[in-house]
Amino acid sequence: MALWFDETYAGKIRFGLKLKRSLFSGKSEFQSVDVVETEEFGRALALEDAWMTSERDEAHYHEMIVHPALTTAPRIKRVLVIGGGDGGTVREVLRYQEVESVVMVELDKMVVDVCKEHLPSFGVPWDDKRLSLKFEDGIAYLKNYSGEPYDVILIDGSDPVGPAEGLYASPFYESAKRCLAKDGVLVSQTESPIAMASDFARIVKTLRASFVRAEPYFVPIPLYPSGMWSFTYASDSIEPSAFDPARASKIEASARYYNRDIHRAAFAQPSFVRALLAR
Amino acid sequence: MALWFDETYAGKIRFGLKLKRSLFSGKSEFQSVDVVETEEFGRALALEDAWMTSERDEAHYHEMIVHPALTTAPRIKRVLVIGGGDGGTVREVLRYQEVESVVMVELDKMVVDVCKEHLPSFGVPWDDKRLSLKFEDGIAYLKNYSGEPYDVILIDGSDPVGPAEGLYASPFYESAKRCLAKDGVLVSQTESPIAMASDFARIVKTLRASFVRAEPYFVPIPLYPSGMWSFTYASDSIEPSAFDPARASKIEASARYYNRDIHRAAFAQPSFVRALLAR
Repeated sequence: MALWFDETYAGKIRFGLKLKRSLFSGKSEFQSVDVVETEEFGRALALEDAWMTSERDEAHYHEMIVHPALTTAPRIKRVLVIGGGDGGTVREVLRYQEVESVVMVELDKMVVDVCKEHLPSFGVPWDDKRLSLKFEDGIAYLKNYSGEPYDVILIDGSDPVGPAEGLYASPFYESAKRCLAKDGVLVSQTESPIAMASDFARIVKTLRASFVRAEPYFVPIPLYPSGMWSFTYASDSIEPSAFDPARASKIEASARYYNRDIHRAAFAQPSFVRALLAR
Repeated sequence: MALWFDETYAGKIRFGLKLKRSLFSGKSEFQSVDVVETEEFGRALALEDAWMTSERDEAHYHEMIVHPALTTAPRIKRVLVIGGGDGGTVREVLRYQEVESVVMVELDKMVVDVCKEHLPSFGVPWDDKRLSLKFEDGIAYLKNYSGEPYDVILIDGSDPVGPAEGLYASPFYESAKRCLAKDGVLVSQTESPIAMASDFARIVKTLRASFVRAEPYFVPIPLYPSGMWSFTYASDSIEPSAFDPARASKIEASARYYNRDIHRAAFAQPSFVRALLAR
């Protein structure tokens, strides 16, 4: 019997991978959590039957949510990650020696526990002393935060439905801005400009209402609906093209997807994206 | 009953679209031919149960196989298209007033007939007097060609298995080079660097053995395995970045995917592609 796992998006498109076996299947307080071993993409995590990450393509996502911000922000001592339960995002952040502390605020502890056990190849340095894990709601965390501002905030949440919906709305961005240094950088995953074109456009415009600049950039993520994904780089004063050559060249040496040419190129907008954002 | 059509690639990954209805299902001398109406991607063509093109994403493919070559080649009077039965490629070529003749050599007449009937929204100017259609084998056509050289050759073939296999091999590229002007440009679709990584690398290297320069570039095509697709720009003397601003700006005005930023950005190679090509 051939086992497949398909993510069906909006009842209209689906992407499936043939499985070798299921490694974990459970339900947390918030969602269903599955880890499977696939024939083609290695081990993969799914939440609520939606693909989240796989050994094969996780570098595209994690390098590209982190390095455009961390190679351009003037300071990267204090970094906040909202979501990102599989740990790939904090792994990439912790590659920078200049980073002194990373706070990761993940709603669902089961996701972290399951990924620690079943995705060891992600090589997340969970024991790094610079990393603090908080299992709580990222929206409430930022709303109530009154500490020193963060230099960089990375929003690595799931789709804007259910518990993650508030991560893509104006009140959350205003909280984030209040907790971000004046010359800080915020990056969020912002969905597919093809499969979720209206969500994508709405989120980018919402970010533009809170920040002087909010520029989407694009990365192929085979696991996600339509395969073309976006992140958005938001800042009041920093330009996404102004990278620190020393930081960028060091990261480039070990990256699987990221390099400086890709960093620059990712910000080019296809004409249909220009049209979506001009409406 | 919900109807779906899934392309399964290499028995390990699949991409499916929910259907409204089937518009045509037949078998030509060479392959099975289907046109379906999907919920999310409009009408779509499949050959041998592999997705070929859809109303929703065809512009990504057709604009990007044509415009990098046609905005950079020093002359574009005589253009040859091998394959491309749905007509999207010749439609984009015929947008240039400077083009005096386009020869399209397609193996399978049924594909053209079915697309003319069932994909009218592609808006292919089949009756344009500059267009000559030849229903024959592109490999034999170029092998036996002894006419005036072509300024641009575009290879819009299906995957390198079965009848299209020879379109990605050294003898064919040598024939093409013999039929191409010395300062001409050849572009071929060259598969996915993720789903068909070894085919991709082999084909680019084979092109590099025949041409002074062969540079892959990348385009998101949601319909194709992994969603990240490549084309390769090959020439003995022309650089893919040297576009004619007048031609490019005119094309850009009506394009859905292509623009000059995208043209430049598409040539950036992710680090895993650099590694594949360095081996």
